Amino acid sequence: AGDPAAGAEKITLCVACHGTDGKATAAIYPSLSGQSATYLDMALKAYRAGERGGGMSMVMTPMAASLSDQDIADISAYYSEQ
Amino acid sequence: AGDPAAGAEKITLCVACHGTDGKATAAIYPSLSGQSATYLDMALKAYRAGERGGGMSMVMTPMAASLSDQDIADISAYYSEQ
Repeated sequence: AGDPAAGAEKITLCVACHGTDGKATAAIYPSLSGQSATYLDMALKAYRAGERGGGMSMVMTPMAASLSDQDIADISAYYSEQ
Repeated sequence: AGDPAAGAEKITLCVACHGTDGKATAAIYPSLSGQSATYLDMALKAYRAGERGGGMSMVMTPMAASLSDQDIADISAYYSEQ
């Protein structure tokens, strides 16, 4: 399972668009707070696998590419708790 | 722009997973309430174009396929106000 405290250390690349509180910083970005860790984990893995196109995928795919399963679990746990 | 009242009439297929209040009915589905209409519009169009794979795209792609731009704008407006 993901560790929110560990996730808090891994969101450096995320905060520009998703904030530290999970609230989108611009209308084109999704808010992440209140989403389940299950959904966030799935979405990040879809980006990492290059399965999600359209929208901001050209930004998200490289972002997710460097993340391990544990990174994804921790980041998902962190934002689901915001 | 989208009309939330018109959107309320077009969410019959959405409510099983996203609720009438935009709260996901299961952890694997995203909540839509609180997302911007801009983001929801973009995501629905990505599904409609078959650009989003992974996750629940095999459910969402056919759902979005039948929607017009106005349908998408209205549904996005509706859920962004929940």
